[in-house]
Amino acid sequence: MNYFVIVDVTLRKGIADPEGSTIERALPALGFTGVTNVHAGKSFRFDVEAESEAAALDKATSLAQRLLSNPVIEDASARIGER
Amino acid sequence: MNYFVIVDVTLRKGIADPEGSTIERALPALGFTGVTNVHAGKSFRFDVEAESEAAALDKATSLAQRLLSNPVIEDASARIGER
Repeated sequence: MNYFVIVDVTLRKGIADPEGSTIERALPALGFTGVTNVHAGKSFRFDVEAESEAAALDKATSLAQRLLSNPVIEDASARIGER
Repeated sequence: MNYFVIVDVTLRKGIADPEGSTIERALPALGFTGVTNVHAGKSFRFDVEAESEAAALDKATSLAQRLLSNPVIEDASARIGER
């Protein structure tokens, strides 16, 4: 069966996030106040052919940690998504 | 009150996704089969100061569509997240 999986890749705590910082600094000048702790991340959406939801998640998690993220600076997590 | 918001930015249907295509082509050689329709996207996580959850989502949606995405080629959606 085909499962739709979403992988979220975020920077680990303590790792500098220049994209997030730049957005946060720019927001007040663009009319948005009260927005803080901006963090930028990546996401990947794909279909996984597997026998069960658990098997699909296992495969996606392994793929995410080995190929879609840099485990030194990033966290990756996989979840079943809605199309 | 402070609300934690997650904004997902994905390419619109029909827009070329070279990053996703490249990953999809590379996967079999790296030992992952049965993974199809790979799409790459971006995500942003931040805190919004607002009076209610609905007001926080409104602000985040407007911010996402005006500043965090290119509406010609990308869809942006905001949701309340768990920390």
